[in-house]
Amino acid sequence: MIRKISPSMMCVDLMNVERDIRSLEAAQVDYLHIDIMDNHFVPNITLSTDFVNSVREITDIPLDIHLMIENPENSLLAFKGLDANDIVCIHCEATRHIQRALSMVRELGVKVGVSLNPGTPLYMVEDLLEDLDVIIIMTVNPGFAGQKLVPATLDKIRNLRNMLDERGYGDILIEVDGNVSFEHAKSMSEMGANIYVGGSSSIFSKEGTIVENTRKLREIIQAV
Amino acid sequence: MIRKISPSMMCVDLMNVERDIRSLEAAQVDYLHIDIMDNHFVPNITLSTDFVNSVREITDIPLDIHLMIENPENSLLAFKGLDANDIVCIHCEATRHIQRALSMVRELGVKVGVSLNPGTPLYMVEDLLEDLDVIIIMTVNPGFAGQKLVPATLDKIRNLRNMLDERGYGDILIEVDGNVSFEHAKSMSEMGANIYVGGSSSIFSKEGTIVENTRKLREIIQAV
Amino acid sequence: MIRKISPSMMCVDLMNVERDIRSLEAAQVDYLHIDIMDNHFVPNITLSTDFVNSVREITDIPLDIHLMIENPENSLLAFKGLDANDIVCIHCEATRHIQRALSMVRELGVKVGVSLNPGTPLYMVEDLLEDLDVIIIMTVNPGFAGQKLVPATLDKIRNLRNMLDERGYGDILIEVDGNVSFEHAKSMSEMGANIYVGGSSSIFSKEGTIVENTRKLREIIQAV
Amino acid sequence: MIRKISPSMMCVDLMNVERDIRSLEAAQVDYLHIDIMDNHFVPNITLSTDFVNSVREITDIPLDIHLMIENPENSLLAFKGLDANDIVCIHCEATRHIQRALSMVRELGVKVGVSLNPGTPLYMVEDLLEDLDVIIIMTVNPGFAGQKLVPATLDKIRNLRNMLDERGYGDILIEVDGNVSFEHAKSMSEMGANIYVGGSSSIFSKEGTIVENTRKLREIIQAV
Amino acid sequence: MIRKISPSMMCVDLMNVERDIRSLEAAQVDYLHIDIMDNHFVPNITLSTDFVNSVREITDIPLDIHLMIENPENSLLAFKGLDANDIVCIHCEATRHIQRALSMVRELGVKVGVSLNPGTPLYMVEDLLEDLDVIIIMTVNPGFAGQKLVPATLDKIRNLRNMLDERGYGDILIEVDGNVSFEHAKSMSEMGANIYVGGSSSIFSKEGTIVENTRKLREIIQAV
Amino acid sequence: MIRKISPSMMCVDLMNVERDIRSLEAAQVDYLHIDIMDNHFVPNITLSTDFVNSVREITDIPLDIHLMIENPENSLLAFKGLDANDIVCIHCEATRHIQRALSMVRELGVKVGVSLNPGTPLYMVEDLLEDLDVIIIMTVNPGFAGQKLVPATLDKIRNLRNMLDERGYGDILIEVDGNVSFEHAKSMSEMGANIYVGGSSSIFSKEGTIVENTRKLREIIQAV
Repeated sequence: MIRKISPSMMCVDLMNVERDIRSLEAAQVDYLHIDIMDNHFVPNITLSTDFVNSVREITDIPLDIHLMIENPENSLLAFKGLDANDIVCIHCEATRHIQRALSMVRELGVKVGVSLNPGTPLYMVEDLLEDLDVIIIMTVNPGFAGQKLVPATLDKIRNLRNMLDERGYGDILIEVDGNVSFEHAKSMSEMGANIYVGGSSSIFSKEGTIVENTRKLREIIQAV
Repeated sequence: MIRKISPSMMCVDLMNVERDIRSLEAAQVDYLHIDIMDNHFVPNITLSTDFVNSVREITDIPLDIHLMIENPENSLLAFKGLDANDIVCIHCEATRHIQRALSMVRELGVKVGVSLNPGTPLYMVEDLLEDLDVIIIMTVNPGFAGQKLVPATLDKIRNLRNMLDERGYGDILIEVDGNVSFEHAKSMSEMGANIYVGGSSSIFSKEGTIVENTRKLREIIQAV
Repeated sequence: MIRKISPSMMCVDLMNVERDIRSLEAAQVDYLHIDIMDNHFVPNITLSTDFVNSVREITDIPLDIHLMIENPENSLLAFKGLDANDIVCIHCEATRHIQRALSMVRELGVKVGVSLNPGTPLYMVEDLLEDLDVIIIMTVNPGFAGQKLVPATLDKIRNLRNMLDERGYGDILIEVDGNVSFEHAKSMSEMGANIYVGGSSSIFSKEGTIVENTRKLREIIQAV
Repeated sequence: MIRKISPSMMCVDLMNVERDIRSLEAAQVDYLHIDIMDNHFVPNITLSTDFVNSVREITDIPLDIHLMIENPENSLLAFKGLDANDIVCIHCEATRHIQRALSMVRELGVKVGVSLNPGTPLYMVEDLLEDLDVIIIMTVNPGFAGQKLVPATLDKIRNLRNMLDERGYGDILIEVDGNVSFEHAKSMSEMGANIYVGGSSSIFSKEGTIVENTRKLREIIQAV
Repeated sequence: MIRKISPSMMCVDLMNVERDIRSLEAAQVDYLHIDIMDNHFVPNITLSTDFVNSVREITDIPLDIHLMIENPENSLLAFKGLDANDIVCIHCEATRHIQRALSMVRELGVKVGVSLNPGTPLYMVEDLLEDLDVIIIMTVNPGFAGQKLVPATLDKIRNLRNMLDERGYGDILIEVDGNVSFEHAKSMSEMGANIYVGGSSSIFSKEGTIVENTRKLREIIQAV
Repeated sequence: MIRKISPSMMCVDLMNVERDIRSLEAAQVDYLHIDIMDNHFVPNITLSTDFVNSVREITDIPLDIHLMIENPENSLLAFKGLDANDIVCIHCEATRHIQRALSMVRELGVKVGVSLNPGTPLYMVEDLLEDLDVIIIMTVNPGFAGQKLVPATLDKIRNLRNMLDERGYGDILIEVDGNVSFEHAKSMSEMGANIYVGGSSSIFSKEGTIVENTRKLREIIQAV
């Protein structure tokens, strides 16, 4: 089963991003998870299109771009240099025209993802499976780093895995985002998650280096 | 089975609220249902945070606060003196971050409720059961007193009762709000409702005193 | 099984509408499908209330009015001369009070419809069946003529037909709107669609006259 | 010069409004100032249309209704029993169609007012003078009782008085709303204010009874 | 002084637009005034981009396009075939970035206009004069045909004419829109208006043919 | 006369911010101008609160924070470590309660600024002068780096300087933001600007090093 690691760029030193990306390269992470917020869909602003484009220029690690913005279909054209290894993920609560928005992401030539808030039922993506490569199960409410896991989201991972398998969409990857600690990563892995957004409670934990933490996380999620 | 009565404070004499609350105390009602509207989530404005705080100061009847406002998570801190006997209920259609909003209600130390408009399917609360003490089934569209029952909502009560029982959440109370007349209360009770918001067609009916009407309503809902 | 044809008035010559309506009368179409957009629910503006009222005055063909506007409940009173043969359809994504909006459409004395975007799951109308005469399955994303079919919507037609039959609402008509070409109409008919919104790929195809194209479309949808 | 007193009903005991209105009648106040908020134009909700209608039924004191709500033109029809002695005031920042909104207030048969936030320049009402009976200069930012005066608003009163006199609109009354304490009332009177919204720092001051406080305020504003 | 006539296309027979345009050509009108509304900036929907493009194809009369829509800067690219004889006018209340919006209109290669609601002070365009060819003074509130003149707007025309002359922008044309009857046109002409949007009370008056009415209107406005 | 240089941090290398800040320290710039956008007030997202807080930790250069976000009053508490040398500037078009918002900025203990879009008249800040330390004249429309100067804004600087001097607010600093090239800086200086936001056409010009460019810019603005 596919198990990938996508460290949250919200946790790097914003004053020395290149230095931290070199560490992440050394740790052989699979993706760089970049959150873009608009102070409306979520009450915060973090990284940006310019940040994405700058990262793209200095590394070959695939990007895992998570748009926590309203009407994301209007903001897709600013990204440069994305390709089929990158993921662009939008929120199903962020537009009334989610299928159109996903098809516009598809036109960028990237992997297409949709993200669900903790309270959003899986039914909301039932008619979108044909359009998807990745589904993010938010395991905290989006907007901030350092939050506590919403416990009910663990079962939601398993329910999604079952739903995908039953309907013949077993290839869609499940990404988990929010308090993916070493402890929770184990449970998430058992439930069937594929991509792990690691933040301050794993990859960037003060208990080890990025390289050590990444190795530890990888062992945990591959042990299942 | 738990059967509680929660008279709608929209129906008291706004010029003499204390006097009417004394009548409701005499009638031994279980809650005081207080609707707060914002002219946006629903096209009306009724009671207010100040009203809630004033009621709290003069009676020990538990409060059943129903927020019909957009983004209720931003308006929770104005309430004073609430405790574990009180209910604060928000609408699942009123925020894209319903799980976060419910967890913020939880932090107030009160019972946590979510309310569903007549047209909103039960699926929308599937991933919220862990967060809830109460679910309001709106049996009219919210915004005004004196409306006619939406017939399809009677089955919805039963469907919710079944869903809660099947998933092991039988302790969550079902509250019904909207045209809870003596006649409809009987049906609602058969369907499994626990808390009854009584208005002009029951508790405040001109046919009897508040005490008489409350007694009559209680007999009806406990007869099932 | 009922099979009706509803040509999209977005495709007529706006400078000579009466002339084109006479052709549609000659072709014996069943409805005139009139899209009204507000540049907010969808990013376009097309026809209008005045247009509807003008059409009403010059023809007896029943109207099939499709409101792609936010909060349609606020714009219903401007229509004149509608009756029980006409359809007014609103979008379930366009208001948080969909049941109230549908009951307000009902009060116009017309057939009541709800429309679902391609990405909106069928569950969203589960509690609305009692209020409906027609359900539009959008087979493209609403807003523009000339788009390509979203393939997953074909199965959605069948799923809706099954859901309606299972729940005893077999009388609700399924309307399909978006790239209803001769080719797709066949599939849609097999899936159980009742009303066909024909545009540039069928009724208004340059390959034939309106009369010829309508006859061809009717044969295709009645062949199943 | 006209000097009127309009106590803020936000400061009465909401549990015993009738009792407090009798005190205000005894004090011979000129108006009852009733604030209606919507949690959007200002971040609070206070009194309501129902409250206005209830007050109207029990007293003949003219009402001074202050709508701090977005698009007030949509909420005017709910008031009952208003007449030419009452004032209805809307905010010029609350609608893009302020002249239409004012003309709709005019159609209610009441005195027509517009209110300006502390930061809103007087120029914004230049083309509205023909439509107005009253202009409220907010001397605090709207939304809450008990705030401190914004000092720059004192000069604004004088500037408005001069502007009205110069343009031949000397009959328009200037109302001041916000921290109208005994001390500030003197300055406001010198600047040319006509109607004084008295709250916790004057009419409802704990230092005297409502009757005493009103007499004191009246003496101060009439001394100029 | 320049005096132009721009009949409102809201008043033509929507079922036979070409026929009415031929009459307007015969009447030698100077522009065709086309209102586009979005149900948000004003509470109505009328004509559309498609309508503009269709008119463009069948006549050489310059178009006078009046966008009564929010954030018009997002909807400019849909027009086809416009040139330096056409006017595109947006509302200064419709965007927070009015200078950017005007410069985007400029890029279309057309004459650039801004429109002011009756309650909007002239000061709002002071920093825009460099960007403008036309200023519309709305003499009714926008949104509907057949309204009564707002009297204060007559002086506003003169004030604008004076302001433009004083600042060296005498070349900017003043357009008047709303109840431009034969009677009011005379006053507007005296005040200095250049372009007259004629509707049901002049060009389309039932008292004469379009040709007769246009001739009469032209005589009135040129008599000053 | 005060002449300060505030380089736009949108122009630094986002992958190596610390390195570029060291260059800016060497160049002895007076401020670091940090733009925060929300994709709603302007159609872009750039830097963030986290970015501000990170910069604060590594340098003592005063910060010049420019909030291009809606309702900035709701986002002020996230900044850490600001003091009386820093500027926080909000847009007068971004809230209906600009005076309240400015007073909330004041409570942060920083210098208080307001910014005006190119099309916004100076009158809009007339009643705010008491609350201000800085006024930004946007010399391009906000949202993007690299735009062309709006010529009319040069006169606006002079008009503002005159207005401030006449009203006794000569201490308020005028900041210019947008295409502050070496060439335009000269004109802006002649008009009376105090703080210069330098971007790709001056401080970060490829023609020199940051130190050289800053020295050149300083000479130009001090020559007047």
